[in-house]
Amino acid sequence: MSFELTRTLLDGIRSDVAEGRDSAVQEVLKELHPADIAQVIDRLDQEDAVYVFRLLDSEESAEVLLNLDEDRREELLASLTSREIAEDVLEHIDSDDAADVMSELSEEKQREVIALLDDQEQREDLEELLSYQEGTAGALMAKELVKVRTDWTVARAIVEMRRQAQEVDHVYTIYVVDKDDQLYGVLPLKQLLFSAESTRTLIKHICDDEIVSVKADTDVEEVVKLMKKYDVVVLPVVDDRDHLIGRITFDDVMDVMTEEATEDYQLASGISEDVDATDSPLVQVRARLPWLLIGLAGGILSSQIIAQYEEELQIDPKMAFFMPLIAATAGNVGVQSSAIVVQGLAAGTLDGVNLLARLWKELRVAVISASVCGILIYLVNLALQQSQALSYTVSIALFTVILTAAMFGTLIPLLLERLKVDPAVATGPFVTTLNDITGLLTYFTVGHFMYDMFL
Amino acid sequence: MSFELTRTLLDGIRSDVAEGRDSAVQEVLKELHPADIAQVIDRLDQEDAVYVFRLLDSEESAEVLLNLDEDRREELLASLTSREIAEDVLEHIDSDDAADVMSELSEEKQREVIALLDDQEQREDLEELLSYQEGTAGALMAKELVKVRTDWTVARAIVEMRRQAQEVDHVYTIYVVDKDDQLYGVLPLKQLLFSAESTRTLIKHICDDEIVSVKADTDVEEVVKLMKKYDVVVLPVVDDRDHLIGRITFDDVMDVMTEEATEDYQLASGISEDVDATDSPLVQVRARLPWLLIGLAGGILSSQIIAQYEEELQIDPKMAFFMPLIAATAGNVGVQSSAIVVQGLAAGTLDGVNLLARLWKELRVAVISASVCGILIYLVNLALQQSQALSYTVSIALFTVILTAAMFGTLIPLLLERLKVDPAVATGPFVTTLNDITGLLTYFTVGHFMYDMFL
Repeated sequence: MSFELTRTLLDGIRSDVAEGRDSAVQEVLKELHPADIAQVIDRLDQEDAVYVFRLLDSEESAEVLLNLDEDRREELLASLTSREIAEDVLEHIDSDDAADVMSELSEEKQREVIALLDDQEQREDLEELLSYQEGTAGALMAKELVKVRTDWTVARAIVEMRRQAQEVDHVYTIYVVDKDDQLYGVLPLKQLLFSAESTRTLIKHICDDEIVSVKADTDVEEVVKLMKKYDVVVLPVVDDRDHLIGRITFDDVMDVMTEEATEDYQLASGISEDVDATDSPLVQVRARLPWLLIGLAGGILSSQIIAQYEEELQIDPKMAFFMPLIAATAGNVGVQSSAIVVQGLAAGTLDGVNLLARLWKELRVAVISASVCGILIYLVNLALQQSQALSYTVSIALFTVILTAAMFGTLIPLLLERLKVDPAVATGPFVTTLNDITGLLTYFTVGHFMYDMFL
Repeated sequence: MSFELTRTLLDGIRSDVAEGRDSAVQEVLKELHPADIAQVIDRLDQEDAVYVFRLLDSEESAEVLLNLDEDRREELLASLTSREIAEDVLEHIDSDDAADVMSELSEEKQREVIALLDDQEQREDLEELLSYQEGTAGALMAKELVKVRTDWTVARAIVEMRRQAQEVDHVYTIYVVDKDDQLYGVLPLKQLLFSAESTRTLIKHICDDEIVSVKADTDVEEVVKLMKKYDVVVLPVVDDRDHLIGRITFDDVMDVMTEEATEDYQLASGISEDVDATDSPLVQVRARLPWLLIGLAGGILSSQIIAQYEEELQIDPKMAFFMPLIAATAGNVGVQSSAIVVQGLAAGTLDGVNLLARLWKELRVAVISASVCGILIYLVNLALQQSQALSYTVSIALFTVILTAAMFGTLIPLLLERLKVDPAVATGPFVTTLNDITGLLTYFTVGHFMYDMFL
């Protein structure tokens, strides 16, 4: 199976829709995986998207809905009645996905939809899932799972598993709980293959009791770390008394990883909020302009600082030549230092490393880079036959600026982390701007002394 | 189960090692998961690490090895003889992990180790895996899998699965092949739970034949996209004639995702190679200095450009005040535009969108931002009572620079993509530098005309 979204396919569907050939559209979509249908619907304009979506049968449309772009999903959800959401969507999807869909509705609509659900257990599950705070394991987990008890025989377990499996779409793991419903272990598929022969064996004796689990209020970042570290496909979630209350599957974690990576990358690039190429220009401006304004404010501040040194510029206008070099290098060094810290914090390699040790290491890196850059630029200025005062100023300032930018770049994300702000902010325009300004201040201060000395 | 690496634990192990209390160390480590032991060994100095590693039994040590930091793993591998690698490590791990370990050895050592493997099938599997190019599905897959045939009865399949499962550590999915060994589908765990009752049923009738697979030479980025899109835990790999030859598990894909995200983030931050906070200063300098030198070269070029306009600077030294503002804004806008394109390319949302449409959208974003920034800075300069010539110069230049930086920022990653260079390079210092320079050129050109007009 392989699918490529082509212009021909899209145009075909558009013209079928325009001329009301419903069955032709259904014919084409029937062959596709829900994730592929979602890709098609993402590309249609809103009116066509709603129309095509309504041509799908309800089981399929629920799956398609889950795979749509967030904006498109919101649009389609808005076009559905509470009854349609309850009966055609929520009935056909897992509880974690159902909670995701619900969280995109207004509180009032949520209440309406929940009231329309037939199954009381489903209602309760959904209300429970919606009660967890966003960003916790509880908000990410699904309630559907297959579990057997330690004191059951294999024979009984098999009967129970069959019964439970009817309710669960994908069975990845079979959990084992004790008689108080506390998580005890897992029954690996491999054990299950071998166990049919010994139907009287107790589950306790064939299950694996080394199991990683999380609490409902565990942070999702921690969940990702654990799943990566211990290579588990599904992570069980327990309550405060170790009762098994849900499971988190790898696909949810992949989504979280993608979101986190995107967010870090966007912050580093000076984009707030989750925008992408498909968003409207105005949405993009809203996510991008604030960072530009920070840069602008920094630029204005820079201009005021330089104005203080107008005298130096009049003595030697050539001082201006190297302002961009100083500012850019300060910015680049700061971003590098911050990025190393941000990554270390994310990967946990900085856990337990003390601040001074981190700064000392960064200082050594900076001294090497600063020496190389300082000497190089001195040689360049020698070749360009610049004045001694200017050559010394540029080299000394560059050396100093690299050291200070590295220290700022290291300290700021660590400080932000303590203040519970995402340290990735540090790699964005904010710190670049700060380092630009510090760089220029250093440059003119050094220049002031040098010109006093040489002139 | 939960583990936190504490200073107390580490210090305890260090002093036990120092005083030769081997059994005390073993006692502590016995309680830990291999991934946790790896974390401990990562933090010890090299000598202690080798010592502690040798205290582990071979099955455990193999698992620990796989979980170590790359540098530490290399050190430990270097301390092992070919025979130890073959017998104590490779025997205990899956073929994909074995291939990873092998790829860290010299070609000569690889040959030695392979010759020392007892099992011919393992030798052949390993040689096959090593023959695939890095970055392809083949290089990522494992050979271990459980498969049944379409024309088998459930009863026979169960017998065969049991036999095969003995060779495979983790059974995630059971594959179904036809009699030519071509991939036909999967047998979900859920089906398996129900199938024991009907032992005469043919596998063909109970398996799921809608299956996503990849070829051995499929790019790993594509593998990640497919697994995310279709939410599959394990992806089967087939050869050119659709024969099932391996499987890729979600944990490998999580690793690839992390690597890719890290790489993009590092490129955006001006760091080449995969360095982190634990690397030595010299390693860090090697990854960071080249980017600083690009910035430096850009700075030198900037200085030469400004030198061309020394006359303008002598007429009005205040021109210098706004150079950092222009350069920084150009840099910030360019990075934003590039980041949007880089993300769009990665997420596939730009597939099939034509270049002109993309540029047109970016242009609209840029015009809005440019207007806001241009007007704001004009008002600021009015408040600062700057000359008309300077005020107009700054505003017009800023407006122009935002537009050109947005266009460069959009075009360059698209161009890099066509040239098969990672477009994420565009968000790094390279493009910032280019935009700095373009920004200054624009600024002085506008200034030249403005001062002609007003003076």
